[in-house]
Amino acid sequence: MPAPKDHDDLARLGAAEARALLVDGRLSALELTEACLARIAAREETVRAFAFLDPDHARRQAEALDALRRAGRPLRPLHGLPVAVKDVFDTGDMPTCHGTPLHEGRRPRRDAFVVGRLRAAGAVILGKSVTTELAVYAPGPTRNPHDPGRTPGGSSSGSAAAVADFMAPLALGTQTNGSVIRPAAFCGVVGVKPSFGLVGRSGVLRQSPPLDQVGVFARSVRDAALLLDAIVGFDPGDRDSLPWAAPGFERTLDAPWPIEPDLALVPTPRWDEAGADLQGGLAEIVQALGGAVPALDLKDALERVWDLHRTVMEADLAASYAADYARGGDALSPVLRAMLERGRTLPAVAYIEARDAIPRLRAAIEPLFDRFDAFLTPASPGAAPRGLDSTGSPAFCTPWTYLGLPALTLPLLKDGDGLPIGVQLVGRHGDDARLLRTAARLVRRLEAAPPQASETP
Amino acid sequence: MPAPKDHDDLARLGAAEARALLVDGRLSALELTEACLARIAAREETVRAFAFLDPDHARRQAEALDALRRAGRPLRPLHGLPVAVKDVFDTGDMPTCHGTPLHEGRRPRRDAFVVGRLRAAGAVILGKSVTTELAVYAPGPTRNPHDPGRTPGGSSSGSAAAVADFMAPLALGTQTNGSVIRPAAFCGVVGVKPSFGLVGRSGVLRQSPPLDQVGVFARSVRDAALLLDAIVGFDPGDRDSLPWAAPGFERTLDAPWPIEPDLALVPTPRWDEAGADLQGGLAEIVQALGGAVPALDLKDALERVWDLHRTVMEADLAASYAADYARGGDALSPVLRAMLERGRTLPAVAYIEARDAIPRLRAAIEPLFDRFDAFLTPASPGAAPRGLDSTGSPAFCTPWTYLGLPALTLPLLKDGDGLPIGVQLVGRHGDDARLLRTAARLVRRLEAAPPQASETP
Repeated sequence: MPAPKDHDDLARLGAAEARALLVDGRLSALELTEACLARIAAREETVRAFAFLDPDHARRQAEALDALRRAGRPLRPLHGLPVAVKDVFDTGDMPTCHGTPLHEGRRPRRDAFVVGRLRAAGAVILGKSVTTELAVYAPGPTRNPHDPGRTPGGSSSGSAAAVADFMAPLALGTQTNGSVIRPAAFCGVVGVKPSFGLVGRSGVLRQSPPLDQVGVFARSVRDAALLLDAIVGFDPGDRDSLPWAAPGFERTLDAPWPIEPDLALVPTPRWDEAGADLQGGLAEIVQALGGAVPALDLKDALERVWDLHRTVMEADLAASYAADYARGGDALSPVLRAMLERGRTLPAVAYIEARDAIPRLRAAIEPLFDRFDAFLTPASPGAAPRGLDSTGSPAFCTPWTYLGLPALTLPLLKDGDGLPIGVQLVGRHGDDARLLRTAARLVRRLEAAPPQASETP
Repeated sequence: MPAPKDHDDLARLGAAEARALLVDGRLSALELTEACLARIAAREETVRAFAFLDPDHARRQAEALDALRRAGRPLRPLHGLPVAVKDVFDTGDMPTCHGTPLHEGRRPRRDAFVVGRLRAAGAVILGKSVTTELAVYAPGPTRNPHDPGRTPGGSSSGSAAAVADFMAPLALGTQTNGSVIRPAAFCGVVGVKPSFGLVGRSGVLRQSPPLDQVGVFARSVRDAALLLDAIVGFDPGDRDSLPWAAPGFERTLDAPWPIEPDLALVPTPRWDEAGADLQGGLAEIVQALGGAVPALDLKDALERVWDLHRTVMEADLAASYAADYARGGDALSPVLRAMLERGRTLPAVAYIEARDAIPRLRAAIEPLFDRFDAFLTPASPGAAPRGLDSTGSPAFCTPWTYLGLPALTLPLLKDGDGLPIGVQLVGRHGDDARLLRTAARLVRRLEAAPPQASETP
């Protein structure tokens, strides 16, 4: 296959497709980067995905990679692939401002651990994507590419929108509650939040260390696997980083799969918040799978999770952002201010108990993954809500973030207006490769036998 | 050298001496165990070091080890050496009651991680040594072997007393504030609290995870190194356990030492609590070393440490012992009850900030260990105080426990009554081998040129 000639077609290439062309020399890193920059130039006024973008700096990175190729140097796994990086990851060559005027002009000296991994893998760090205020709730300027009157979700708003709108094939985000899965679902892309501890957080804005998790955005499961392969690994500067060997996610996708994966439907105790489109769509998926998807209650394990998560997060936010609170004034949103003030009143014992319940509750759920490859569960109550004042409900993300289980969302459903609705899969802690494989398999199966009443992308 | 015939002489053998005889077959594990049991039978009524002792069970372990030897199986590093284990380490074959009637009759199903390591190394788990109430302040029945009217220190009271009184050559303890260094100093033995994270804590009574540290008791630095070599290593069940290769402490002691170690005297901001015997004794040691021991202030780094430590410890104790508090009634000592009640009032943000200051303050001190092999500092204000109602002041242990730096105490000084006074050495985090080497070197140097006014053991 020759590379597309048209900029817009080039920008629409998936990461794995583009890599095949880059490896063969049918596409240069500069051409692909120019295509992304052209798409951004055309669409940024509407979408507003970037907090910082220096096109020439992106071009120089691409040219340097092309020069390495011409010099006969071995190509690295992400050679020439542009990646948008949420503006909470430190970058030594670009500002990192955390979505708040309080950190305006901040210039880190060093790359975050995962940004360093991306550079080592040959990626082009395209620019810094918009985050909500300090990666919490108050929205940034980003709009949903499917409907600029709707929220893209948050807090990784710019990363989700950039990937959905073909401005970049790949992006990095973070999730402390629903900040990867929710925007990915609202923007109709694949979002993956790996197991807690799998991706190092050195040089990432610290919100709540027991909850903060790095995630990725892509337009297919394979592309997400490609990006994860580059960033997973032990980070000695992150005390929660797991000293595990990386499993090789993309390779796992291609391994033979002798039997169909077993899924369980987990409506969660917040099921009544899910809209009709979502509830009906999930039922149709279950039907398309032949109906062999038992529903699991999990009420005992999950019912306290939202309160526990909130206790950990609000106490940690109050500590992490104490200096911002002290000098914040009008620069701090009322919603964040109120949250920090609640956090300051929480007792230490409540915090410790809520944090220590994580491994206990995770262990209570763990045996279910002997029977099931993944839980099938909502990513959000429905499509992106109208308006730009809120980033929507994280309720269906909270349990899996709190428990640190690997989770991903697939754009499998649409509402009546054709807006994407995400479906979430959740796996066993540490078994991210199986979760990705299960997701790829599910996508293939539904392509072969799509749900009846709703469309699949 | 033939093995001593007399039980008492056998019990007085150091671990390394006994090992040499055990390896050669000049001494059996049963003979050595019998010697320790005979010493316990003679002295336990006075010293009261053991919370649980089943002599026949100890004999059976020794006999099984002797049988392995006769069968020609390879000898393991601690083959036949009796070890007393503080009653906060789970033992699958003995009760573990944490020094409180609230946990009376508790029978764990499995060994603590380090107890398993000891068994794998061929040790005889002699019995469970007395801990203070839940390893905090309220004393158990143990008395100081040098003067039964004085405290042995705590919380690892029985372990320190048993080793000092020749009931066991080796013992395990734990330290959350001063619970290894202080009793070792008061009982006149070597106590070592390795770097935070170096020794796994699975199956150990949990007090305060950011502070809890396992330590050892022995009658020489070499013996302590022998025991540490067996227990150091990654514990997958302890999330603070460091995934480091064990350095080989005993081997390091025998490595050539081309230059004299550099020491710095660190009086700490609590120096005025140190008694005249201790202050004078330290000055004499400095003089005996030729005076080239500069004093370091460290006021900025250390002055808040006692408050920060107390915040972390009391909040964690309130959470860790919440169930004991709820059903405690008269079974809980007033001192512990008051501490738990203070802990319950602490705000989460104060706890988080106090815990997070640990790596920051440790990093502030770190560069000093480029210049100095160890800090020379008091282990306690002086010799063991009179009375059995308190275990003495932990003030000189608190900073190093809080910072997680490796620390050890050497019985280098005596007071006017001939009671031992410990001298503490503190090293760089993770450089425990250098600290042990420095200690061994210091002991040798002072034996060659003892301090003038005080005696050395």
